[in-house]
Amino acid sequence: MPHVIIVGCGFGGLAAARALAGAKVDITMIDRSNHHLFQPLLYQVATAGLSAPAISAPIRSILAEQRNVTSLMAAVADIDVARKTVVLEDGSEIAYDYLIVAAGSTHSYFGHDEWAPLAPGLKTLEDAFDIRRRILMAFEYAEREDDPVRRAEWLTFTVIGAGATGVEMAGTLIEIARHTLRGEFRRIDPHQANVVLLEGSDRVLAAFPPDLSEKARMQLVKLGVDVRTGSRVTGIDQECVRYTDRDGDQRLASRTVIWSAGVAASPLGKALNVPLDRAGRVPVGGELSIPGHPEVFVIGDLAAVTSEGKPVPGVSPAAKQMGRVAARNILAHIAGKAPQNFVYQDYGSLATIGRKAAVAMVGKLKFSGYPAWLFWLFIHVYFLIGFRNRLMVMTDWAWAYLTFKRSARVISSAIDTPPSKPRDEAPTS
Amino acid sequence: MPHVIIVGCGFGGLAAARALAGAKVDITMIDRSNHHLFQPLLYQVATAGLSAPAISAPIRSILAEQRNVTSLMAAVADIDVARKTVVLEDGSEIAYDYLIVAAGSTHSYFGHDEWAPLAPGLKTLEDAFDIRRRILMAFEYAEREDDPVRRAEWLTFTVIGAGATGVEMAGTLIEIARHTLRGEFRRIDPHQANVVLLEGSDRVLAAFPPDLSEKARMQLVKLGVDVRTGSRVTGIDQECVRYTDRDGDQRLASRTVIWSAGVAASPLGKALNVPLDRAGRVPVGGELSIPGHPEVFVIGDLAAVTSEGKPVPGVSPAAKQMGRVAARNILAHIAGKAPQNFVYQDYGSLATIGRKAAVAMVGKLKFSGYPAWLFWLFIHVYFLIGFRNRLMVMTDWAWAYLTFKRSARVISSAIDTPPSKPRDEAPTS
Repeated sequence: MPHVIIVGCGFGGLAAARALAGAKVDITMIDRSNHHLFQPLLYQVATAGLSAPAISAPIRSILAEQRNVTSLMAAVADIDVARKTVVLEDGSEIAYDYLIVAAGSTHSYFGHDEWAPLAPGLKTLEDAFDIRRRILMAFEYAEREDDPVRRAEWLTFTVIGAGATGVEMAGTLIEIARHTLRGEFRRIDPHQANVVLLEGSDRVLAAFPPDLSEKARMQLVKLGVDVRTGSRVTGIDQECVRYTDRDGDQRLASRTVIWSAGVAASPLGKALNVPLDRAGRVPVGGELSIPGHPEVFVIGDLAAVTSEGKPVPGVSPAAKQMGRVAARNILAHIAGKAPQNFVYQDYGSLATIGRKAAVAMVGKLKFSGYPAWLFWLFIHVYFLIGFRNRLMVMTDWAWAYLTFKRSARVISSAIDTPPSKPRDEAPTS
Repeated sequence: MPHVIIVGCGFGGLAAARALAGAKVDITMIDRSNHHLFQPLLYQVATAGLSAPAISAPIRSILAEQRNVTSLMAAVADIDVARKTVVLEDGSEIAYDYLIVAAGSTHSYFGHDEWAPLAPGLKTLEDAFDIRRRILMAFEYAEREDDPVRRAEWLTFTVIGAGATGVEMAGTLIEIARHTLRGEFRRIDPHQANVVLLEGSDRVLAAFPPDLSEKARMQLVKLGVDVRTGSRVTGIDQECVRYTDRDGDQRLASRTVIWSAGVAASPLGKALNVPLDRAGRVPVGGELSIPGHPEVFVIGDLAAVTSEGKPVPGVSPAAKQMGRVAARNILAHIAGKAPQNFVYQDYGSLATIGRKAAVAMVGKLKFSGYPAWLFWLFIHVYFLIGFRNRLMVMTDWAWAYLTFKRSARVISSAIDTPPSKPRDEAPTS
């Protein structure tokens, strides 16, 4: 039987595998980690609202019933399209007849990789644990700090980039400071924490129409977030973030910085030996395969594809749709039929901001505030893999909503950074 | 107001703090971590049954309402009983009028600390994550291993020490292999995994009467655990465990080893400058203070105390009772009254073994099997801190019980160990 290798078990890869259920193919699903991650809720893990298991499911268990799939937990080092083989990090090779590359994307620091340790991005569970730890530790350091200036630095949180993730992070950080931690400290008042959202462009949620961006900005400000658009970051160090806005160079004293500004396609795209676009994505035709290789498909965030003349956004519905089309085109190729072209079905856009705050756009319909938030809640819980996780998440959220408590406030390592000099150590811990 | 420092927010320290609620004292609760851990269920986190937040609660949030408590997340480096000060890792000092040392215990490798990286013990959340990772990765490596000998090594799990934790771990490991992972692998059959429980003495659960030990052993064997009593471990390396039994030296090929044999008191006991017992514990009088220092109390696993001529076991009920007595004796000392003597109230012993398998001893009443298991379940969920966690745990367990699924099967880091040479790297990852 034809051997199909799928690299990456994100939304796209998983959808492709499922679309091939029952088909006369052998599928090998290769992923670096042992779990499928429901990334849209990753910020909740980073902000101690959900536990990691609530938004991740073991790939083996998701695909256990699909007998034509073999799961392999391994990292792909290279792809040889000429020899039709995938090379793993340990040097072993696996031959394929069809390949679906769904390796996704990672952070981009716009050539400033030195910022990475100072301002972690949010892509994996480890990122989320790192950010959770930094946020919770910042309040601990602030409580211990005698110098009011340093204390203020610890109580200032900066989120760089006002896309969906940045807006979610900023909105949730404010909720933690104003509600979750209320009354738990004796020297500081967490309510005095500042959350600054820096955005280079002139509005938040640039993917939305201007009126919804404005609604989002207003909701952020209402929650207490200090929104600074038109602010281009020029430097980050342990104590501050430097940026330029219309008034010139600015210095923002802040010890906790979260990066949600740039996204770059997975470096695995380079292995395909085709010209990549500026974001490092692999340009593919409507049938989602690369030029000259009808057996090699690229989907999801790693793919640069247009639909009806418009570029397809890097969102999970698009990835799922591409996964299904790639699967169908593999079966078509096997059957000697013509491939189908990918047409992006845009079901709308949705961004949550905080408690009862969100913006939504479904077809021509735009709405915001509480209704949008409820809609967001429903959609996300609905699409979450597996009944079990839905149940967990709903329990957690019902609880969090009623009590303002957050259920995952665990720093899963005893402190290893002497409070005396957090300056040097905290951000790298 | 008198300043009371409590070192360690385990069962003993937390009980002491709560017993001082409303009292005219200032309390500083110092703990290395930001959470109180419900240790009796830690093995469930290690075996992917529960998420970390389900068994841990932020100390600040537990004590938020108790206004006379200030929580400090810090590591204690030293204690100067002469100057009545506690020295933190960063060198800063805090003076006390009364001190309660509840620093608990850690693993003891009986002078073989080189075994620690090869056979992790289970005391902290980090230990649990490490063990969870090793268990889940072992099946991954086995699935990828072509050599049947190496594969068998990966599928052999050894638990050293048949106390409560060792018995729980062994029973749960069998359940994972026989039920949880069923049908998820294509090359190996997890059902063929071996779980070996090595115990130096001649019976499991030595703290229980012989007839219950025998019942426990029978239940373990029924579940599929290979119980080997009278087996003294002499060596551990990457591929095997060496031990001696009545037939001489034995070699057990096994790549995943869990240590639950030895417990040693926290090294902080040394700081008190009093002679320690063989287990490193601090001998204290009936009033729980150290000789010559009626203001310094030692409680919980760190204390060596007798009640009615019998040594008090290192279990959570004893720690809680000591915490309350220490608190009362502090108030008595302030009021110029005589201290009360600690009398251990033994409510019985309870050990779970696996699904529907446990042994229990309440007063003269002994029972085992399903009833004991239900009793254990009830007791543990009941005593779990906070309604929220009880809810989470009950949801998780109801689910696990009905489906055999385990909800926390997340390896929270992408693989960093090339499958080609797990020998060198897996156990140290």
